[in-house]
Amino acid sequence: GNGVPAPKKPCMEQNVELSYADRAKLPNVHPLASKLLKIMAEKQSNLCVSVDVTSSEELLQLADTLGPKMCVLKTHVDILKDYTVAFSQKLQALAENHNFLIFEDRKFADIGNTVKHQYEGGLYQISSWSHIVNAHVVPGPGVVKGLGSVGKPLGRGCLLIAQMSSQGSLATGEYTKAAVKMAEEQSDFVIGFICGSKVTKRPDFIHMTPGVQMKAGGDVLGQQYTTPEEVICNKGSDVIIVGRGILEAPERLKAAEAYRKSGWEAYTKRLGQSGH
Amino acid sequence: GNGVPAPKKPCMEQNVELSYADRAKLPNVHPLASKLLKIMAEKQSNLCVSVDVTSSEELLQLADTLGPKMCVLKTHVDILKDYTVAFSQKLQALAENHNFLIFEDRKFADIGNTVKHQYEGGLYQISSWSHIVNAHVVPGPGVVKGLGSVGKPLGRGCLLIAQMSSQGSLATGEYTKAAVKMAEEQSDFVIGFICGSKVTKRPDFIHMTPGVQMKAGGDVLGQQYTTPEEVICNKGSDVIIVGRGILEAPERLKAAEAYRKSGWEAYTKRLGQSGH
Repeated sequence: GNGVPAPKKPCMEQNVELSYADRAKLPNVHPLASKLLKIMAEKQSNLCVSVDVTSSEELLQLADTLGPKMCVLKTHVDILKDYTVAFSQKLQALAENHNFLIFEDRKFADIGNTVKHQYEGGLYQISSWSHIVNAHVVPGPGVVKGLGSVGKPLGRGCLLIAQMSSQGSLATGEYTKAAVKMAEEQSDFVIGFICGSKVTKRPDFIHMTPGVQMKAGGDVLGQQYTTPEEVICNKGSDVIIVGRGILEAPERLKAAEAYRKSGWEAYTKRLGQSGH
Repeated sequence: GNGVPAPKKPCMEQNVELSYADRAKLPNVHPLASKLLKIMAEKQSNLCVSVDVTSSEELLQLADTLGPKMCVLKTHVDILKDYTVAFSQKLQALAENHNFLIFEDRKFADIGNTVKHQYEGGLYQISSWSHIVNAHVVPGPGVVKGLGSVGKPLGRGCLLIAQMSSQGSLATGEYTKAAVKMAEEQSDFVIGFICGSKVTKRPDFIHMTPGVQMKAGGDVLGQQYTTPEEVICNKGSDVIIVGRGILEAPERLKAAEAYRKSGWEAYTKRLGQSGH
């Protein structure tokens, strides 16, 4: 995979599949997206683990044990019963040691002036420790402006939610297109998308897909599952987000390795198909 | 205003404007919506104050001082730098003393399994102290099911975000209609809407409108303001949500009284126009 872009084609019309490592070197790539793509290439992992546990201690143990397998660790810090500033510091140290990024899945969804405070302040001070956050686009571009006013000076990045894995989601069609447009207009802070499938050809944006399990299916509250192969190879996404598939496995480390391997094989297969 | 529904018309096709007090007595009204409508009638207030401060002490002082003027106090608990369980208990006592409801403006927007934990758990344990929460409908009906599994046993209620006051919001057209449908299908937990104007004729649902100031205008992050008269009398909403119009006033109590009076006069004018 040495897919250097042909000079006559602008990158937005790129049809050759670039490797993660090549995309990390693109001239317009956001520094944080570049860092993530490098991590993915180095660790041979496009696995984001969603550690939805309620104990800080358990979360830190998982981060330490599964750290070598993942490129991103996804948190819902507001479901922890015992969050402290010390916890967030320990988590940052683990991210450093194991070379993964932290993604607080806060799904900011308010007007700009409010999300600014929610991102920076409160008990969680999310902007101080989370490399990546995400936002819904339903409030309009102000939500990204508000978050960016806090996150940009810190070198943080934001994913816009272009599609959702839950049944009956309204993030489809024109809504998804509006998310892509909003990302393109604020690409100094937006590094990619939460989506079910590739929503833009621009290789500097990263696509991350939740609702991934080894077997397709769902839960009783509308969640719907797709497989790593389907997500990476057929839907063209970049990162698989796996939660219950790993957390509810009898051996979590084994499960994480299985997902890492499955996601990576789907990626190499996709690269192969495009002629690498 | 003794607008008893004419027996030959079903309430969904009601054209006569019912008073808040009459709506509180409707046979199908949710108990929490009924309680709110009674408070509004008793206190002659359709004012919800949005207390977006970052100190618990200041929030409690505001709740105590402005309590007599409002029907609902709206919080963003996650911007408080010093939230404690003791704070939430003091806030509940003030709500009891001054007869207002607490509305945590969390804008839940994740899949059902996640919002369930976010509503019930974490440091804030929102379901334990907030009478009302709200949710975006973009995840599909699972978000309401997840919240309802926690909130219904506690007698809580939920507002669905059908429209937003921010510039370029995507909550319009079909999206707004989907919110109304979702509310109708889960009216044992959904008590109304966050919206710019009336989105359904069903008088058991309560319409609450943010972005209200005495003068129309906006902020630099896309917020847009409308007046109490416009919101209540012309747009047909029920409750005005006022934040900076009161918090940034030189005398907050005087400002709160001015908004209460303005909102109430707009309401009585609307009732008068419909022949009361």
